[in-house]
Amino acid sequence: MDEVRLIEVKEGVFSENEKVADQVRSDLGDRGVLLLNLMSSPGAGKTTLILETIKVIGENLKLGVLEADIDAVVDAEKVAAAGVPAVQLRTGGFCHLDATMVTQGLEALPLGDLDVVIIENVGNLVCPAEFGTGAHKNVMILSVPEGDDKPLKYPLMFSLCDVVLLSKIDSLSCFEFDFELVKQRILKLNPKAEIFELSAKTGAGVAVWAEWLQAAFRERMT
Amino acid sequence: MDEVRLIEVKEGVFSENEKVADQVRSDLGDRGVLLLNLMSSPGAGKTTLILETIKVIGENLKLGVLEADIDAVVDAEKVAAAGVPAVQLRTGGFCHLDATMVTQGLEALPLGDLDVVIIENVGNLVCPAEFGTGAHKNVMILSVPEGDDKPLKYPLMFSLCDVVLLSKIDSLSCFEFDFELVKQRILKLNPKAEIFELSAKTGAGVAVWAEWLQAAFRERMT
Repeated sequence: MDEVRLIEVKEGVFSENEKVADQVRSDLGDRGVLLLNLMSSPGAGKTTLILETIKVIGENLKLGVLEADIDAVVDAEKVAAAGVPAVQLRTGGFCHLDATMVTQGLEALPLGDLDVVIIENVGNLVCPAEFGTGAHKNVMILSVPEGDDKPLKYPLMFSLCDVVLLSKIDSLSCFEFDFELVKQRILKLNPKAEIFELSAKTGAGVAVWAEWLQAAFRERMT
Repeated sequence: MDEVRLIEVKEGVFSENEKVADQVRSDLGDRGVLLLNLMSSPGAGKTTLILETIKVIGENLKLGVLEADIDAVVDAEKVAAAGVPAVQLRTGGFCHLDATMVTQGLEALPLGDLDVVIIENVGNLVCPAEFGTGAHKNVMILSVPEGDDKPLKYPLMFSLCDVVLLSKIDSLSCFEFDFELVKQRILKLNPKAEIFELSAKTGAGVAVWAEWLQAAFRERMT
């Protein structure tokens, strides 16, 4: 198991954030690393998805992970146990990551050995949508138990994501969730969004997501 | 169906928030109204719980509801359809309610006719914990699909709530969730927390919660 580094990250200057984000994006692009920002509500399954993604494409792509949490290091430990370099960013009460915090995390990763870095943002559908992290791609998870009305309530998050993953589809026996309706709602906000259904628990649909991620990496590098 | 008022609320001065909150608490106490702040992740079931609460004790207590959302009015419409005065507070991107926003909402409710006002805060386990609303009691919902590790990740929210409702217990066939472990984690942060299990869908446990709410009202008024 790789060692987990814990960094107490400090926020950057608000007005400078988009500049720092552009710099991160450009630097990582030059180094051949794709940076992906994964967002969702608390408990929607970000860590579980990352672990499944490692299983499915960990042999093809060299992955690294930045785990953000207000407190706790449990997620980074799980990722490190899967054999992937992981850094825990502790935001100390802060409700989102900004690009400066991401920079602090990236410095602790062996970037020269990596193809893709996944940022697991703080579990929150509001604030992370308002701060660029420097990622090349933004991805969010909406889990079935949260309900199909979420695009109506958190429109900004749905508007800016390249991919929306409808997750925990294994729980449809417990919850009502109208896939067609939620897709209409997402596409109304964001006509270019790619929408996949999956269950990190059963593995259903994870291959399609993993294929998208590999294609995004290849596209970035050509 | 009562008419839904929609108010575009504006934030107050940050440094003044706790003063405004104290004023709200004291004013409502003087008027015999209990103010309750209900918080959770997006989709944990705040609105559904409010609707069940209206069904169970709407005859005994005169309820009013302030519904906060970044966008959308769907929740206030549902509550109003249940025959309870409801005001929709639209925060325009803001990730939490502050006491000034609550004041704006309370002015639109018929307070002289009410016993209890429930604030449905923005769905977010981080920011709402940092801003007093003026409520006499803070209550949060943790739903089974979110997982039993949430107290580790969002400690402030769990620390300040008088009641933690473990909800969606009907979904235990779909998810693993260790009730004893989560209770230990909550009580470690907050030894005075009262913890109830319920399902707003099946109604299981709602009566116990409703009894707590009625007792809190009676205690407040004596």
